[in-house]
This record gives sequence, structure tokens and C-alpha cells, in this order.
Amino acid sequence: MDAKPFSVTTGALPGSKKIYVADDADASVRVAMRQIELEPSSGEAPVIVYDCSGPYTDPEQDICIDRGLSPLRAPWIEARGDVRRYPGRNVKPEDNGEKSVVPPFRADAPSPLRAKDGACVTQLAYAKRGIVTPEMRYVAIRENEGRENEGRENEGRKQATGAPRDGEDFGAAVPDFVTPEFVRDEIARGRAVLPMNINHPELEPAIIGRNFLTKINANIGNSAVTSSVAEEVDKMVWAIRWGADTVMDLSTGSDIHNIRDWIVRNSPAPIGTVPIYQALEKVGGIAEDLTWEVFRDTLIEQAEQGVDYWTIHAGLRLAHVPLTAERTTGIVSRGGSIMAKWCLTYHKESFLYEHFADICDICRQYDVSLSLGDGLRPGSIADANDAAQFAELDTLGELQKIAFAKDVQVFIEGPGHVPMHKIKENMERQLDACGEAPFYTLGPLTTDIAPGYDHITSAIGAAMIGWYGCAMLCYVTPKEHLGLPDRDDVKVGVVTYKIAAHAADLAKGHPGAQIRDDALSRARFDFRWKDQFNLSLDPDTATDYHDQTLPAEGAKKAHFCSMCGPKFCSMRISKELKDDAQKGMAEKSREFRDQGGEIYHPSAAE
Amino acid sequence: MDAKPFSVTTGALPGSKKIYVADDADASVRVAMRQIELEPSSGEAPVIVYDCSGPYTDPEQDICIDRGLSPLRAPWIEARGDVRRYPGRNVKPEDNGEKSVVPPFRADAPSPLRAKDGACVTQLAYAKRGIVTPEMRYVAIRENEGRENEGRENEGRKQATGAPRDGEDFGAAVPDFVTPEFVRDEIARGRAVLPMNINHPELEPAIIGRNFLTKINANIGNSAVTSSVAEEVDKMVWAIRWGADTVMDLSTGSDIHNIRDWIVRNSPAPIGTVPIYQALEKVGGIAEDLTWEVFRDTLIEQAEQGVDYWTIHAGLRLAHVPLTAERTTGIVSRGGSIMAKWCLTYHKESFLYEHFADICDICRQYDVSLSLGDGLRPGSIADANDAAQFAELDTLGELQKIAFAKDVQVFIEGPGHVPMHKIKENMERQLDACGEAPFYTLGPLTTDIAPGYDHITSAIGAAMIGWYGCAMLCYVTPKEHLGLPDRDDVKVGVVTYKIAAHAADLAKGHPGAQIRDDALSRARFDFRWKDQFNLSLDPDTATDYHDQTLPAEGAKKAHFCSMCGPKFCSMRISKELKDDAQKGMAEKSREFRDQGGEIYHPSAAE
Repeated sequence: MDAKPFSVTTGALPGSKKIYVADDADASVRVAMRQIELEPSSGEAPVIVYDCSGPYTDPEQDICIDRGLSPLRAPWIEARGDVRRYPGRNVKPEDNGEKSVVPPFRADAPSPLRAKDGACVTQLAYAKRGIVTPEMRYVAIRENEGRENEGRENEGRKQATGAPRDGEDFGAAVPDFVTPEFVRDEIARGRAVLPMNINHPELEPAIIGRNFLTKINANIGNSAVTSSVAEEVDKMVWAIRWGADTVMDLSTGSDIHNIRDWIVRNSPAPIGTVPIYQALEKVGGIAEDLTWEVFRDTLIEQAEQGVDYWTIHAGLRLAHVPLTAERTTGIVSRGGSIMAKWCLTYHKESFLYEHFADICDICRQYDVSLSLGDGLRPGSIADANDAAQFAELDTLGELQKIAFAKDVQVFIEGPGHVPMHKIKENMERQLDACGEAPFYTLGPLTTDIAPGYDHITSAIGAAMIGWYGCAMLCYVTPKEHLGLPDRDDVKVGVVTYKIAAHAADLAKGHPGAQIRDDALSRARFDFRWKDQFNLSLDPDTATDYHDQTLPAEGAKKAHFCSMCGPKFCSMRISKELKDDAQKGMAEKSREFRDQGGEIYHPSAAE
Repeated sequence: MDAKPFSVTTGALPGSKKIYVADDADASVRVAMRQIELEPSSGEAPVIVYDCSGPYTDPEQDICIDRGLSPLRAPWIEARGDVRRYPGRNVKPEDNGEKSVVPPFRADAPSPLRAKDGACVTQLAYAKRGIVTPEMRYVAIRENEGRENEGRENEGRKQATGAPRDGEDFGAAVPDFVTPEFVRDEIARGRAVLPMNINHPELEPAIIGRNFLTKINANIGNSAVTSSVAEEVDKMVWAIRWGADTVMDLSTGSDIHNIRDWIVRNSPAPIGTVPIYQALEKVGGIAEDLTWEVFRDTLIEQAEQGVDYWTIHAGLRLAHVPLTAERTTGIVSRGGSIMAKWCLTYHKESFLYEHFADICDICRQYDVSLSLGDGLRPGSIADANDAAQFAELDTLGELQKIAFAKDVQVFIEGPGHVPMHKIKENMERQLDACGEAPFYTLGPLTTDIAPGYDHITSAIGAAMIGWYGCAMLCYVTPKEHLGLPDRDDVKVGVVTYKIAAHAADLAKGHPGAQIRDDALSRARFDFRWKDQFNLSLDPDTATDYHDQTLPAEGAKKAHFCSMCGPKFCSMRISKELKDDAQKGMAEKSREFRDQGGEIYHPSAAE
């Protein structure tokens, strides 16, 4: 089959260029950022924004998915001297299902890395030992988005200047300026995670934690019939282009091993999976046939490939299952229902729970982070915050302590479907039960009555729980509950969740958040239409919508906006006013009449 | 020109039929509701929902926009014996602008009604005198959505049963069951308004207030070139079809008088306008040429046509204008900027403020409600909750007391652009400053960085302020800030705001709100796909999205959902579990193995 090596989406976003900000202390740390240039007339500096899109948006880069991305982190990993290459597990036919058509990634790919005997190679282990890694330096620079240190590093403004920050952070400790030491400390406390497998050196480090920018995840999955590898890889490329900070590969069926290889080798973003999906495939889809051995073998397989984090539903215990009996929508988590069925079939405790320490021992050797799955999350407003959900959350807290003690990076998954008045309790209980480990929620949806619009019903809940302290928001697309998302659905889902995450950062009073809003608002007030488009989350759609009403190129300079239509502009007078602000009112009123202050403006549409 | 009398959108929504619920005490009160039929297999009763769509969704009705809707309220208005017909104002050329092409509505239309000398014909005046009008009886039935009175009328559950309601209402007093007396009392306290001009007898009464279902408004405007009257009327019909409770006609330019006639005569929903727009047209668009006389004449013109409520920016005072000088986006309200310019030009106090009592005297004679406009609402996150905004809000509170004292129904407009952490302060200040008069906000948008998605940035803020107590949410379409909304944009805007309003009702613990969510969730769990589609806010889109992945008709009965893909279903096991809930775990586990519990299901797609 044809791998169409160049058919993934490349090219800079409108008005943007890729810049690389180097670390003063370590020249090997060069952080990719996106710089949005403004019209010279603005007299304003470019706006630098967080950039998850990787080399694909840098025209200077020569992209070839057959080769994969360059291993940015390789020297850092090797320099630590605590890993070694080994032959690794042989790929088995069942890894790809029966009717495999996707070719393996480069045969000459290096064999996998693993911790030297007894070593623990997690960022958490380094952080606890006081080591600031290059990866920590990378995210420190990345989180500041080009802002300068004003000497208030590591301290909330309250502590530093006594002046309250414009925001309500519900007890978070977002610093004015992020330093490598702050990153290390947050990881060491278990309040933040850096998901990055030592076998994924191509990754650009991204941090997930309540005291950093709110992150979002996009899910992708292989097609029933795969037409090309490039198509599968492009799903990831497309998601990060619009702002996905991490990508979960929820593929099932054939070819999942090989497709995963292609995705990881080409992904600058952390890749997450739900290993139970592949394990189930290996036993023919029969939950009862799942064993710890099959599951363990799947973890090794994926760890060697470079998967950065795993969703593991180890918190669903046999005793929890009956708590779901009277639910309106029962168990809606796929992994949860697989484990519930296994537990019931043998009337035994979950092997994931029983072997949790063994799972952690695997994570220690590759630095795979654990995303503790909420197999009992509510699937409807009726089931929100019920006994089953919170019983599992308490177990997740118990497992978080085990993982943390073993120096394994861990975060916690959350709901789901929750009405607005019950969202805050989810955040508070999670912080309390799980030692402030990062929370990672799916929405939550704030009503069940709008299938087809669940990106919106859930963005409301996502923005709120992000404000309350949720570290990462898993996107929901318009097709949720109805079908499989296409390319447009993925883009709409990602942009919608960037809105929720940014609204949360604004409300928390994140020191850098409002810079982009203000720049866009000034562009709007100055009628710098192109700056307004380029500063937006989706310049293509903004330009398209504008042009549908006013296609003429001149309209992009027109001094009116659609709020008032082409004939009259409400902002013009404000501008006149602003210019005259210093002069006396009486004088201004005279001037006004003298100059016969234009109220009509020629419409480019006419 | 061709009026295309039958080209407006008609027909029932999928699975729905129009029912009419009569009042026991007054047979002339028959309330239109929408009944959603469920599959017989469900064994469930139909779900009755609030219905703003009017006769257009009743196949039994013979729709003819040339004739207009039947005057439902005419007998009620006449029976009160406090109004009389009079010749009315002669239509002037300037009422329609210069190049008018739209014909007037029926020449044989009755002349307008006005209060008899000295009388006040507002619902507020009746309410204060203890009179329960048929209109009040109508909304009482309408708000209960077919629920039965369980003897706890007029009392929150807290008071009635001691059991706390599942919701947080921030001090609202939503009753378990709405009675006509409760409606009267809320209106008499000024906490709710029933916008309905005595010259709009076609209107189906709808109530706006914090202790009733949260309402939404959609804006429409005439096209630059009007191709047909039916097209203009259909903009209103289309908006109410998807759930707009009120419609504001923001038309400018030529034909506005005649188009407004056609819209009001065919609208079952309250129609609002911003009279300053038409007044400005009458003086050639020169704000300085506006006079109280021209404005007053425009009010009479619109009152005689039957406009139900007016946005009037009387709260923007000369002294407030300098407060906007240092804003990032100045004055973004069109009416606000017109009045700011007028005030500055003459350095005089606003004639709307000076003549506010005179405006109230006009409202008293026709029962036009006042929506006090927020001419100084913030147009960006940077300007949210600033001195200009709150100075105007305090003036609106002062005007609310004047209107209330004159028995004029009044509500208050609010922002705009507000980050999440500053939304609650808007609601609290409004309740405090404006005597609990209903609040009516535009969004608010919670970030400025997503033009093209402002229906979403604002739905987040709208859901939250609705939860806090906002009575009506003015929709925002995806074209906001960029262009003029088309038919699809209007639908997306309305459905998005129905989501926000419903999420708010759920969070407030409105006793009827969760019925629809639960019915849809049960349908989802039972794989009753068609019930799931028909119970959704937009059955057409839900069905379309489902069919894009699984077109086969059989898929609508398939026992799997897109969350798990066609091969595996997470809900099935929950159903098995639920069925077995009563049996012992051991026995269940044995059964499970015996029956070899199916995990795979034939996919209709395969």
C-alpha cells in the first residue's frame, strides 16, 4: 500500500511563524512557540502563543513520516546514563489482529530502551531527588509563552506584591513566572505530570497540572478500513494543529500495533492509550478470557513502542459493580464495562486492582504515566455524583498513593455527565481523595438533551471544572453519542475545548491568559480585521465567515463591524472620544459639531 | 412583489404532536404544548415540552401570512373594558425609508387599541390590583409543561417538604407547581414580566422571570434587499421553531414599518425592537438631529403596531460617557453610541433619560414592556465590570423604580463580554440595584479569542448567569463580530442557547427540568435511537449525524452506540446487570457463565 509520506497537513497558520526560544542555561533546550505578527499600523509587538502543533507548522522543517520526527530528547535521556537498549519483545501476529495491511515502521528503527536494573527513570523520581531535567527546563520556558521574568517567580501575585490577581483560583498556586525549579517542585509533590516515555524521544515536553496552563486531549482511532498510513498519522497531526496538547489513540481491530508505531514516531505530543482495548482484541473480544499475563504482555508491547500514558481502570472493584445496578445509564465506560464483566464472571476482584503494584513496576522502567480511569463515571445527569462514582474515586485515591510511592507519575480521570451545580464537588473530592494529583475530565456534559451539540453541552462543564482546578479536559465532538467524528468534527471539538481551557485560565487569573484576548480586542477596536482573524483560535473560519458577508478585500480595512452592519459603526465614536479624552468636554462638544463628525461610512459591500 | 403566502416553514417536529391544555376555570384559555411520543416498547408516557413554535408546527392549522394569526387574546383584552379603538397615527413615508418595496399588511386591518383616558392597561397594573388575567392563567399552565399539581403550589420544596431540592438556586423561589396566583404575585412584585402589547392579540403569553423557566431571545433583521415578505416573516418562524421565546426585530433601512407589521401579525412570540434605530433612520442617520419629538412619534408608531417590548438606552447619561474613554473597546452598543454621540454633541443630558416618565406614560396605554438597554456594556474581557458599566446599571435601577411606580413592566439588559469569575457579580449587582426585576443578558462571552465560535464562548457565560438567576438569554450566533447570520447560523444560535437555558434550569433544580434529560437517557440506555433523536433539541441533526456513520435503518434498533463503536457495547452489560440486580452475586456469576453472555453484537453496518 501507498504510505503517501507527504500527505499529512503541513504549513504555518495564517500570520504566524514558528520561533524557537533557547534556555540560557542549556542550549540544547530550544522551545517551539508560535509568533503571531500584527499589522505594522498597530505599533504592537507580535503575540507569542503556546504551540502544540510540532514541526508540521514550521515551513523550514522537512517532514517525512517514513523517517519520523527527529529525537529531540534522545541526548537528554542518554546523558542520564540510567537506561540501556535491549532486544525487546517480538511483535506477534495478534498484536495487529488477523487481517493486517499496514506495514511496520522502519525496519532499522532502534531497539527499545529500558531502565538499567533497579533504576527508576521517571521524571517524578528525578524531581524527588532534586534533579531539574532538560525536560523540566523545556516546559518552564514553554509555559511562560515568551513572557519575561519580573522577579516574582514561583509566587502567586498575592504573596509577591500583596496585590490580588484578577481571577479566582480556588486555592491553586499559579505563579507569575514559571521556573524550572517550580516545575520540579510541582512534579515532586505529585501535583503535575510530564507524560513522556523514554521510548518517545520525538516528544516536545508538555506538563499537566492545576498550576499550569489548562490542557486538552483529543481522541483518535483507526478507521474500519485503513486506506493509508498517512491518513492515520494525519488524524494526530490535524488534532495538534488546532491545539490538542495530548492525543489518545483509541484504535481497535487490526493493525493497531503498526499504526501506533507510525503515530508515536511522528508525534510531538504525548500519546495515550487504553491498553485493555488491545488486550481484549488479543483474546478475541471475550472479556472473560482476559488474564493478567495477556494484559501485562500488552503493557510491555506498548511501553517499548513509546506510549506516554495509559488509562487503566484499576479503580473499578468487584464490590463497586452492584452500586451501578439502579443507575439510569449503568456503566458507560468501555474499559469499565469490560472489567465489570470480568469481575462478575468470576466473582473475583479485578486483576488490574490486584496487580496494580506490578503495573507501576513496569511504568518505572519506561516512565509511562498512569491515567487512572473512571470506569464508573456517570453517563447521564441522573447518575451524576452517585455512590458508584465516588466509591471508585476513593479507590483511585488509594491507587494514586501507591503509584506516587513508587515514583510513577499519575493523574486521575473524571466525568462525564454532571449538571452545573454538581461540578465543583467533583473537583473538591478529587483534590481531597487523590493528593492533588492532576484531574483529567471528559467534559462534563451539563445536560443530556442535545445530542449533535455535545461539544457545547460539555464545553460549559469543561470550562467550569477547568476554572475550579481541572488540569486537562478531554474533548467531545459534535458526533458524541451518535457516530464517529470526521475531520471537521475533530477540528470543532479541539477548538471548542481550547475555548473552555482558555476561559478557565482567564477566570483563574493566569498571568499570561488575557494577553491574547486584549490583543484581539484592540485589533477589533482598531478595525485591524486580519489581526483579528490571525489572533483567533481558528483564523480560517473567522475569515470565511467575514467574507461571506463582506467578500471585498477592502472590507478587511473597513471601519465598521457586523454588530452594527455596514452603514453605522458604534465603535467609531468611542475612538473619537478616546482621542479627545484629554480635552475638556465643552471644547470636545464644539469640535464635534465643527468637524460634523462622520457617522456614515462607505460600505465596501455597496 | 410576490408575498409567497405559504413559503414559511411549517410542519411538526419529528415524533411530536401539538396538544392544547385547557384551563379548568376558564375554557377560553387553551395552552399549546408539544408532546413527544415514545416507542411503545418503552412503556413510557409521552414527554410534554414547552413549545414556542406557535401554530406553524400544528398540521391542523391553516397558515396564511396574508391573513396573519388568529387573535387569541382579543376577547380577553376587550372583556376588560378598559381599551378603545381610535384612528391611530397616519403612516408617513419616512416610516419606511425612501425606497419602499414591501406592501403594507391587509388594508382592512383593524385600527389600533389604546387605553381609555386615564386607564393603565398593563399586566402589572392588573397584578397589583389582585386581578388574575387569562394571560396569567395561560403562562401558569404553560410553565408546568403538563406536570400535575402535587399540592405544593407556590412553595419551594424546601418550605413544603423540608427535603432540599436537587439544585442550587442562589435565593430564587422557583415553585414545585406554578399557579395563576403565583404568576400574578411575581408580576406584582416586579420580579417577572409578561411582554404583550394590547395591539398584539395574536401573541401566546410567555413570562420572563427568575422563578420561571429560563427564556431565550433571537434577533432578526431585514435583508439589505428584501426579496419577499414571506422570507422576512420566515426568519421569525424559523427562530421560534427551534425555541426562541421572544424575537427582536433589529431591522434598519427601508420598509421597516411594513415588514414589522407582517412580522407582528404573524408572530405568536413577543416582538421586541430598539426604537432609536428607526428614529435615527427618520433623521437621515444623523444622531445630532435626533429629537424627543421624533423619538416619541416612533414609539407611538410601534406601539400601535403591537410591538411588545422596547430596548431603550435611557440609562446612558452624559456623565457616564467619559468613563469609557480609557476602555479597550469603548462603546459597543449601537444604541449606546448613538446616545453618547448625541449627549456629547450638545453636551446635554440624554433626552431618553429626561423624558423617561413620558416614555412610561406611553407604555401604560398599550402595555409595552421596557427592556432597559445597557448602552455601556463591555465589549471585551478587558472592559468587563468596569466603572462605566456599573454606573449605568445603577441608573437603570433608578429608572426601574420609576417605571414600576407607573405600573410599567420593566426588565434590565446586561453584558456582553465577561470572564467566568466576574459573571456572578453582574447578577448580584443587578438584583440589588434593580429591585429583582428580570435580567436579560447577551451571553456573556467568556473569552475574546474565538470569533467564529462566539455562540460557544457566550453559551458558557449564558449557562452560568442563567444558573445564577438571569431570566432571559439573548442568543449569539457563530457569525457574531464577523458577519450577518444566515438561516443555519440562526438555528445553531437558538439551539445553543436552549442548551444554556436548560443547563441553567437543571442546576437551579427546576422541578420539571430533568424529566426530558432522564427520558432521553433511558432511551439511550434502551437503544431506542428514534426516541433519543426525537427527545433531542435538534432531531434532524441528531439523526443526520447518526446516519453518517450507520445509515442502515436497522442501525436505529442496533444494540450498540458510537461511544464503543459497532463491535462492542459498554451499556449492554449494565443492562444485564440491572436485570439481575435482585439476585445474589454468586448466582449471577454462575448464570453469566452458563448463558455465555454475548459480548459481540452483529453490526448493522457490517
